[in-house]
Amino acid sequence: MSLKSIQPASRRIYVQGTRPGVRVPMREVLIQAGPPVCLYDTSGPYADPSFIPDLKRGLPRLRNDWISGRGDVETTPRGTLKAMPGKNITQMHYARRGRITQEMEFVAIREDVSPEFIRDEIACGRAILPANINHPELEPMIIGRNFLVKINANIGNSAVVSSMEEEVEKMKWATRWGADTVMDLSTGKRIHETREGILRNSPVPVGTVPMYQALEKVGGKAEELTWEAYRDTLIEQAEQGVDYFTVHAGVLLRYVPLTAQRLTGIVSRGGSMMAKWCLAHHRENFLYAYFQEICEIMAAYNVSFSLGDGLRPGCIADANDAAQFAELETLGELTRIAWEHDVQVMIEGPGHVPMHLIQENVDRQLRVCHEAPFYTLGPLTTDVAPGYDHITSAIGAAMIGWFGTAMLCYVTPKEHLGLPNRKDVKDGVIAYKIAAHAADLAKGHPGARAWDDALSRARFDFRWEDQFNLALDPETAREFHDETLPAEAAKMAHFCSMCGPQFCSMKITQDIRDYATRHHLDETAALEKGLAEKAGEFRQKGADIYVTVGKRDR
Amino acid sequence: MSLKSIQPASRRIYVQGTRPGVRVPMREVLIQAGPPVCLYDTSGPYADPSFIPDLKRGLPRLRNDWISGRGDVETTPRGTLKAMPGKNITQMHYARRGRITQEMEFVAIREDVSPEFIRDEIACGRAILPANINHPELEPMIIGRNFLVKINANIGNSAVVSSMEEEVEKMKWATRWGADTVMDLSTGKRIHETREGILRNSPVPVGTVPMYQALEKVGGKAEELTWEAYRDTLIEQAEQGVDYFTVHAGVLLRYVPLTAQRLTGIVSRGGSMMAKWCLAHHRENFLYAYFQEICEIMAAYNVSFSLGDGLRPGCIADANDAAQFAELETLGELTRIAWEHDVQVMIEGPGHVPMHLIQENVDRQLRVCHEAPFYTLGPLTTDVAPGYDHITSAIGAAMIGWFGTAMLCYVTPKEHLGLPNRKDVKDGVIAYKIAAHAADLAKGHPGARAWDDALSRARFDFRWEDQFNLALDPETAREFHDETLPAEAAKMAHFCSMCGPQFCSMKITQDIRDYATRHHLDETAALEKGLAEKAGEFRQKGADIYVTVGKRDR
Repeated sequence: MSLKSIQPASRRIYVQGTRPGVRVPMREVLIQAGPPVCLYDTSGPYADPSFIPDLKRGLPRLRNDWISGRGDVETTPRGTLKAMPGKNITQMHYARRGRITQEMEFVAIREDVSPEFIRDEIACGRAILPANINHPELEPMIIGRNFLVKINANIGNSAVVSSMEEEVEKMKWATRWGADTVMDLSTGKRIHETREGILRNSPVPVGTVPMYQALEKVGGKAEELTWEAYRDTLIEQAEQGVDYFTVHAGVLLRYVPLTAQRLTGIVSRGGSMMAKWCLAHHRENFLYAYFQEICEIMAAYNVSFSLGDGLRPGCIADANDAAQFAELETLGELTRIAWEHDVQVMIEGPGHVPMHLIQENVDRQLRVCHEAPFYTLGPLTTDVAPGYDHITSAIGAAMIGWFGTAMLCYVTPKEHLGLPNRKDVKDGVIAYKIAAHAADLAKGHPGARAWDDALSRARFDFRWEDQFNLALDPETAREFHDETLPAEAAKMAHFCSMCGPQFCSMKITQDIRDYATRHHLDETAALEKGLAEKAGEFRQKGADIYVTVGKRDR
Repeated sequence: MSLKSIQPASRRIYVQGTRPGVRVPMREVLIQAGPPVCLYDTSGPYADPSFIPDLKRGLPRLRNDWISGRGDVETTPRGTLKAMPGKNITQMHYARRGRITQEMEFVAIREDVSPEFIRDEIACGRAILPANINHPELEPMIIGRNFLVKINANIGNSAVVSSMEEEVEKMKWATRWGADTVMDLSTGKRIHETREGILRNSPVPVGTVPMYQALEKVGGKAEELTWEAYRDTLIEQAEQGVDYFTVHAGVLLRYVPLTAQRLTGIVSRGGSMMAKWCLAHHRENFLYAYFQEICEIMAAYNVSFSLGDGLRPGCIADANDAAQFAELETLGELTRIAWEHDVQVMIEGPGHVPMHLIQENVDRQLRVCHEAPFYTLGPLTTDVAPGYDHITSAIGAAMIGWFGTAMLCYVTPKEHLGLPNRKDVKDGVIAYKIAAHAADLAKGHPGARAWDDALSRARFDFRWEDQFNLALDPETAREFHDETLPAEAAKMAHFCSMCGPQFCSMKITQDIRDYATRHHLDETAALEKGLAEKAGEFRQKGADIYVTVGKRDR
């Protein structure tokens, strides 16, 4: 990586839990005035200066002892873990029995809530804690609408492009900027090896669409897919440690005709494969038919469902249509079945939705899917800006996050056009961190505003270094500033490039407050006194300190 | 400019009105399948291949005959126009007397509504048609919530940076990408000359903050500002042709103490100057005191008010506070006074507002300002992402546009950090075109969706060239595509880089529809028939045409 894993002026700290190994990483940003600002950190051990990365060895197996210590797993002939016969080892299962796992305690510290609250949200299905027992490297996190809004970054190679090493780098890059989970959507050769590299090196949950690999196994022909090939793929991936599976079990045969009048038909790859399979065989979707069996497999590894929205709209014209909402009803039915197996569930959502139709998506999803967490792709709020779909969709993502979506799947500027490169991945993650944080603010998440306030206070005080270091992307903030005023002195002075030395905006308030300090008054009293006094004094003292603050405002 | 003024595959057309010179420019995008797509075009004569730009000569004086033909203006000793004594020449004045001007007819064609509707919206103050009689080069446009949402781009030099030529280029550049108005916020030397260059070459309305120039006239000291210096500046700029003035007349002496407890105080430059002036003189804001006189000047040239929100919040913590809403009440009072003079008014709005507090801004503004058009800066929905404030604010802008804001003032990635360069101006305009169009869609503006549908249809049909050419930014869409698949053949084939040749999403629907065509059935019937038939046939025909569509989706 061209940049250090740890952000500038930052220090990795750990908050110790009550049980061994529960040691929650956070990032402290050191500022010139006031206490450090503590931020949620997804970047894993890479941000710890004492950690030496080794692609082959992978990350430390943080959860090994927690998992084995529960005494309910066994080692398979392939050396991986699964639940002992008759045991259910999902976090939902534990939660429903009142147990607070180390994972739950870890998440409680991370989210600054009580472990009991974490447990209860998981028990009732309102949140999930995706953490495959074969992915012990993972730092536990929670997805639910009563917690910080999360974001996912899609990575993965295609038939022609990129290697395992590149995909691991993309994962590290995405989590450095704040991705809470990654999905490996690889479809090319070496799909197993790529996933292995990602899993062994990923501090965040990894999701996949097992269908993609199953399809490779049957020569790329959707019609040739079989339950057996799919089942074997599920087990293979569960043993590797995949934390959640996108399963398009809601694309029923009878829903396919509902897409006939659509402007862009079926736009989900998994959805289109299952639709094709259904039509070719004139049989019901085998994912639906074998859903109980799928649940049993997933329960044995604590793999969570991400129930795929195979019939989501692919354009504004198709938003909120009969096909989309028919499938959603089925996803609600499947949620109940998964929960009977104590398997955790989240529900995927659209896609392309104009702003006025976004709220209905959340309201319906919460109702028909019994408040299982919602996980949406965007949505894009217009179709007219290919090349900028990180922005068209950040608008929809922020809104749907506010309305109650628990995790937002990022969209990069390359959406609809090509494969995202490193810059695209970063641009997508940044746009979605903005959307997620804006949603946290709008939801009134306790503590969310502290970050904004710290940055704005730095801005008001002309603490340029603090303003850069507190920024979501410190390098870019600094670079943009230095483009106009590169001198070091410019970062010390109450001065910037936007207005030149003649114009002021915030400084007037500073003048008033300085006046108050000198007169030992509180500020409001100072103002009143100031107003009551003759004008001359204020005029005399305030006239020569006109400087600027960095707003290109009217 | 490095790019041609006209966008690719586009043709400038003109729609003729009923009266001489009413000839409304539009852009037709030629596509491979179906009729051309007609788009609103802000780029002026520069996009007409027969026009030869000449910076010194300026643009053709489109409205000269309309203005003189009304017989109510006279030429000043300086060769500029003003209303004859006793005459009122504002568009609001005409509208209230039932007259439909050429400007109104022009706008009616541009917005695809009746001229009577345009007139009535202007008459009641719900919309403004900013068009100084000394800016005859302007192509009329309307700002009101019952029309397309507009965007403004701020340009202007600072004390040290950039020349007149550069600012004219920025204006042309901003309007090429869709800016509906520009504001010249120059604060440096040669402020008159820069503005002259912009006005003579601008096909869109130009706004200013006259205070900035008045301040230069008194040596940069806010306390030294006088009504006389300000008045002379208003007249100077009105004679040059400025179409709207930001006037911070709502910053009253008694409101200044309300900002004392704020995290970032007063962040509007004009607002802070007036606050300082009020405190220094312990007198009421002279803009408020002389408001009637200001109205009289503006009425003589059809300059519109953009009543400045000098006390808008500069951070999330200060949103929707007492200072902001107190000023808003005063702006409502001033709106009534301006309307008594038949002077058009829009109201400026924030700033920094978390999503859950956005709607209140619009609801209040409409109520207390009697439905005068709202013109907001963003708002930014979080403070934590300097370097990306075009995105933090596009989220707020899209939402506030949907809720009823008539014009959105762009924010560039350099906001809070430095002066926007050419790339920043483009990035800001594109982000705001996205926000405005998303708002048009959400408001259900008739015709807004045709653009999205045309692009999505091209996407579904694998018409790559059409997809690029219909994009808001055709060059970037093409470049991003070619980055992965540069060959010309890739733009012909039903194939793209995202998924490789094994994966498909939209194509399944194509298969179904092809089947329908071959069997002379309508699509739904086809599906039903298809479902009723044996599986074999479909399977046989559909198995070998698996191609991909360009969605990096789950």
